[in-house]
Amino acid sequence: MPNSFGKIFQITTWGESHGSAVGVVIDGCPPRLPLTVADLQADLDRRRPGQSDITTPRKEADKVEILAGVFEGLTTGAPLSFLVHNSDQRSEAYDEMREKFRPSHADYTYQAKYGHRDHRGGGRSSARETIGRVIAGAVAKKILSLAGGVEIRAYVTQIHDLTAPVMSNFPSLAEVEASPVRCPHAATAVQMVARIKQARSEGDSVGGIIECRARQVPVGLGEPVFDRLEADLAKAMLSLPATKGFEIGSGFAGAQLKGSAHNDAFVPRGAGIGTATNRSGGVQGGISNGEEIVFRVAFKPTATILQSQKTVDLQGVATDLHARGRHDPCVVPRAVVIVEAMTALVLVDHWMRQHAQTQTFKF
Amino acid sequence: MPNSFGKIFQITTWGESHGSAVGVVIDGCPPRLPLTVADLQADLDRRRPGQSDITTPRKEADKVEILAGVFEGLTTGAPLSFLVHNSDQRSEAYDEMREKFRPSHADYTYQAKYGHRDHRGGGRSSARETIGRVIAGAVAKKILSLAGGVEIRAYVTQIHDLTAPVMSNFPSLAEVEASPVRCPHAATAVQMVARIKQARSEGDSVGGIIECRARQVPVGLGEPVFDRLEADLAKAMLSLPATKGFEIGSGFAGAQLKGSAHNDAFVPRGAGIGTATNRSGGVQGGISNGEEIVFRVAFKPTATILQSQKTVDLQGVATDLHARGRHDPCVVPRAVVIVEAMTALVLVDHWMRQHAQTQTFKF
Amino acid sequence: MPNSFGKIFQITTWGESHGSAVGVVIDGCPPRLPLTVADLQADLDRRRPGQSDITTPRKEADKVEILAGVFEGLTTGAPLSFLVHNSDQRSEAYDEMREKFRPSHADYTYQAKYGHRDHRGGGRSSARETIGRVIAGAVAKKILSLAGGVEIRAYVTQIHDLTAPVMSNFPSLAEVEASPVRCPHAATAVQMVARIKQARSEGDSVGGIIECRARQVPVGLGEPVFDRLEADLAKAMLSLPATKGFEIGSGFAGAQLKGSAHNDAFVPRGAGIGTATNRSGGVQGGISNGEEIVFRVAFKPTATILQSQKTVDLQGVATDLHARGRHDPCVVPRAVVIVEAMTALVLVDHWMRQHAQTQTFKF
Amino acid sequence: MPNSFGKIFQITTWGESHGSAVGVVIDGCPPRLPLTVADLQADLDRRRPGQSDITTPRKEADKVEILAGVFEGLTTGAPLSFLVHNSDQRSEAYDEMREKFRPSHADYTYQAKYGHRDHRGGGRSSARETIGRVIAGAVAKKILSLAGGVEIRAYVTQIHDLTAPVMSNFPSLAEVEASPVRCPHAATAVQMVARIKQARSEGDSVGGIIECRARQVPVGLGEPVFDRLEADLAKAMLSLPATKGFEIGSGFAGAQLKGSAHNDAFVPRGAGIGTATNRSGGVQGGISNGEEIVFRVAFKPTATILQSQKTVDLQGVATDLHARGRHDPCVVPRAVVIVEAMTALVLVDHWMRQHAQTQTFKF
Repeated sequence: MPNSFGKIFQITTWGESHGSAVGVVIDGCPPRLPLTVADLQADLDRRRPGQSDITTPRKEADKVEILAGVFEGLTTGAPLSFLVHNSDQRSEAYDEMREKFRPSHADYTYQAKYGHRDHRGGGRSSARETIGRVIAGAVAKKILSLAGGVEIRAYVTQIHDLTAPVMSNFPSLAEVEASPVRCPHAATAVQMVARIKQARSEGDSVGGIIECRARQVPVGLGEPVFDRLEADLAKAMLSLPATKGFEIGSGFAGAQLKGSAHNDAFVPRGAGIGTATNRSGGVQGGISNGEEIVFRVAFKPTATILQSQKTVDLQGVATDLHARGRHDPCVVPRAVVIVEAMTALVLVDHWMRQHAQTQTFKF
Repeated sequence: MPNSFGKIFQITTWGESHGSAVGVVIDGCPPRLPLTVADLQADLDRRRPGQSDITTPRKEADKVEILAGVFEGLTTGAPLSFLVHNSDQRSEAYDEMREKFRPSHADYTYQAKYGHRDHRGGGRSSARETIGRVIAGAVAKKILSLAGGVEIRAYVTQIHDLTAPVMSNFPSLAEVEASPVRCPHAATAVQMVARIKQARSEGDSVGGIIECRARQVPVGLGEPVFDRLEADLAKAMLSLPATKGFEIGSGFAGAQLKGSAHNDAFVPRGAGIGTATNRSGGVQGGISNGEEIVFRVAFKPTATILQSQKTVDLQGVATDLHARGRHDPCVVPRAVVIVEAMTALVLVDHWMRQHAQTQTFKF
Repeated sequence: MPNSFGKIFQITTWGESHGSAVGVVIDGCPPRLPLTVADLQADLDRRRPGQSDITTPRKEADKVEILAGVFEGLTTGAPLSFLVHNSDQRSEAYDEMREKFRPSHADYTYQAKYGHRDHRGGGRSSARETIGRVIAGAVAKKILSLAGGVEIRAYVTQIHDLTAPVMSNFPSLAEVEASPVRCPHAATAVQMVARIKQARSEGDSVGGIIECRARQVPVGLGEPVFDRLEADLAKAMLSLPATKGFEIGSGFAGAQLKGSAHNDAFVPRGAGIGTATNRSGGVQGGISNGEEIVFRVAFKPTATILQSQKTVDLQGVATDLHARGRHDPCVVPRAVVIVEAMTALVLVDHWMRQHAQTQTFKF
Repeated sequence: MPNSFGKIFQITTWGESHGSAVGVVIDGCPPRLPLTVADLQADLDRRRPGQSDITTPRKEADKVEILAGVFEGLTTGAPLSFLVHNSDQRSEAYDEMREKFRPSHADYTYQAKYGHRDHRGGGRSSARETIGRVIAGAVAKKILSLAGGVEIRAYVTQIHDLTAPVMSNFPSLAEVEASPVRCPHAATAVQMVARIKQARSEGDSVGGIIECRARQVPVGLGEPVFDRLEADLAKAMLSLPATKGFEIGSGFAGAQLKGSAHNDAFVPRGAGIGTATNRSGGVQGGISNGEEIVFRVAFKPTATILQSQKTVDLQGVATDLHARGRHDPCVVPRAVVIVEAMTALVLVDHWMRQHAQTQTFKF
């Protein structure tokens, strides 16, 4: 179960950085969803290494194969199985890591927990694991789009100490993709790209913040108590490599407001109900209220840097590490599509759960 | 399942604010754990309303009964069932809420999702639901303590815009409990109490931040990929009423550091391995690394305020709401023990999972 | 999780034979279901000890309390919590069992697994655990009845070597309840009652077989592969105390037929499709086909007998056991309502799962 | 989740009969297990079509690839991913099934549940799905063997109305594999082979019964209440295609015994405890007692027969079906290894669960 996510729309990812392939199985997909490779490849290309001059130069085509679950262009209700071959595996760059633990990586904890590890490219802890998430997320996004025009948009708002102005509008995909750094504020994006390049030239790395919004989400998704929508979103985001924080709506800043300034007044809206403000971030009592869902995720700087670092080896002896290998000086731009994917997975799963409990039987 | 938490050490809470009782069932508890009511009552008393002059005056003894699962003072491995009677229920104070949705409460979303709701005191969305969590958390804390001296300590670091200095030491329970606001920095605590009282006198409310640490946590808890320790902690925290954010280790501030400044160098420590700094917050690759686990949780100001607010009624018509009833002007001090409880539940569950996968069979 | 059943409509039972109470929590119940104590008590009375002169004389009123989840007569979608107090506990009758393992009971395996046990009346292994199942089953039966007139009827077809003729019709509840042995074939029922009384007079016990049918079950419940409807029914039945076998449709006898004689030809039926015969037992490929679901469950004779038996004690020394205490010379008549309950729980859960996957989104 | 089995050692199978491949993912496998393709291929060969003259002539090499989870010959604790390519797909033989429902197959229920289906070779309902189970079962068998010499042996005891004498000894693998029908009683096996060939020559099919035993199973596996060992075994067996019944120990025949004849007296055995007889089938109170686990599974005759049959088409119109295609006149001999696989999966999962609850913490 540690490699599965979701309760009804459940995905299981598998594969290592330097194995023959990575993949994902989706169990519980609704039947009759039109699905082709083209539905998946666009998002994979947004995640792909080597897509721009601010990402790792590892060359991977990341072409997806559909192995099962689709018949004559439609899902059948059976498990969907997807596979992406790994092609550009230069394991020798990792020989040093067989014996030495890279700081702030998973090397030591994997070794301690499992007694040995696939050290090549981080093995299972590699970001290549997220390929499966992006594929499954693309399926989920298609469901959401067809089901009711639900749109999910993630974008970068901060790189290192460069922060974009608050976005009052829901950015278009084109605005996000206009820059390789995926910040829709053009002027800031230019600075961010330069900052990332500078970090790389120093053999260093930088982190940042991604904001994500979802609109047209129906009222009623999420459960009271443990499986609150924001709780499952938080779990989804903190399950991503390199994440250090999550906040929804007013977030940490909301802790500094008084209730009279924080509460979202209800107002009539069309035939329904809306809120005058959205400090709740689209979720109240764990359940979506129809407003935009808005949250932010903090990413630490990439742990792999090309500077000499202090560490210890398998025998616990102090040593120095001189990392080689190809890496992203900043994972945040490529993580945008992964944040969207995880958001879509949470929403589809909760939509199905909500339907099961409240719509199966009518009294 | 929405009311259950944990995969092996699994709890299920039940009960509403103005029902006859609230309770919790623990399934999967290890056998032969010594357990008495006294083990549970101390933490319940830290959660209890009316415990100080900065909490709600609702009077509840919150005395717990053990209904099942203990024989001759030891757990049997069968489900533990606990019950706390509700005594001080003044439902009439909530008559207005039957027809009007309280801003930033769960009233509207529950109504929309389920088609009707128990409006009295928020029904299931009441903080009384957390009684079950505190009971289960006390069981988990006892397990952790007996198993290896694991200690969990949560405390308040911020109320409204008042922030305590960074705590370099692990505070003692006595330091935390020295003030009703549960901030171990005495001078700040005094100010915080005053701020909360001031908010109440204005019919207003304030939020804040809780920091939580766990020490003596063994290396190896948590899973790669989805069930990372920090992901399950994030879910646990965002499942608490009124929470808006979670961050671990360096958190959101870490996004502003470069990799060279953020990485935690490994160093020999005794017979094992430690890190020179702890920006990872005790978790690397989703797995505990033996350092202190450190995270922070943001709480919004209490949604119930005694000022007139704009809202709509069941028919969607704009109206004003004049809340009555007893409430906490700030939930943060009482939430300290709940944060500890959820942390303990996550740790025990992951400890059992880690043991199952890596210790059942040896090759 | 060992004490939970169901994936969406999930129940958790708790309590021991000689504890203060037994109970059940239902998580995932649809909202707005009308529910009162009266809906539950009828089935509890069919399970109750002392209901006739062929059951144990233990006196228990088995009056159920609804602790949570119902507001103004309707379920709210929150967990339902039910409790039944134990009243007639004569623990001293079990003093011998503290030291000696009763043959074919759970005494030894509980002791070995957990390191100690509540020996009084079998503790958690007591049939009193099934009270929670019957309560939850009554809720599930009400849902099924309101949802589409689904009817479930279990009845006794065999006691010891006395076998009722094949029932071609779906028996009415009155026919089943006409005899305390719950065999709707009156002449056989009389013999069965006599056989049970004879066994009791000998200090012995007898087993038997229960057949269960469900009609008006919609097409499409059950999943391919692991969660086939018959697989979950089999699990449900083998989870009952004293069961030794399960067969659906043609069952073990079907293994002796050729395919040409076993296959159920499809035939037009009204606007839909039916089968000319029903050797499939209402399930094909793991999924209900709209025909009657028909299965049988084998129960062993009650393990508690009032004859001297060979056994060993806690120290592993051979000894004799002279059981006292009150017991059923045959558990089968009281198990009828429990079989119905478990069937209802499986059907409701699968109905909700089927709805979630195939009805939430339409493409 | 419908395509997943197990709670800690969890497998997910995927793939259709005429898709490009079938496969399985194992999540939760213990680390450091030595594992190569050779460990898996032997069991796959026992399941393979075309292995003898009493099976389907479909030609499939069924060579397994390990895609993930093994590093330098040892499992890493990461998900294991396995794939087997489908090679001999003659879909045209199934053209008639696109429009007509084969009696006693899954065609109609899949169509009704999902709104369309992959009709080629039964799609997901094909027995090719069991390839994934056999692979995972081989991994589980290796774990059990290394862990404590646990042996699982299934064999055929009945084909049509031919029944082998009761086996008092645990048959060797060689005895089982001596005949293509996998009945270890040589004289009966000869008759069974002839009976299967006769059925095929008539365009007909036959069913049968498999018995399965497991020895050296430690005391304590299985849970009280819902996840009893026999309940999970029953579910595992009824999840296999073509199964109609399950019985453990005395089974249905046990219903005809009196308690005094049925109870298994405890006796001292070496330093421990055994039972003089084994009508319990190795499980008491849902938990293994150290005796041999013994159960039987009933299989119906293969639904595909080469005789003309009455059925209806997609429009509900009555028609005749003249099946073509390659099929097994009896699935029972090839199912032997699948029964072993599912048994192994249940035992490994429960072993890990038992360890988690009772061995993680010691008080």
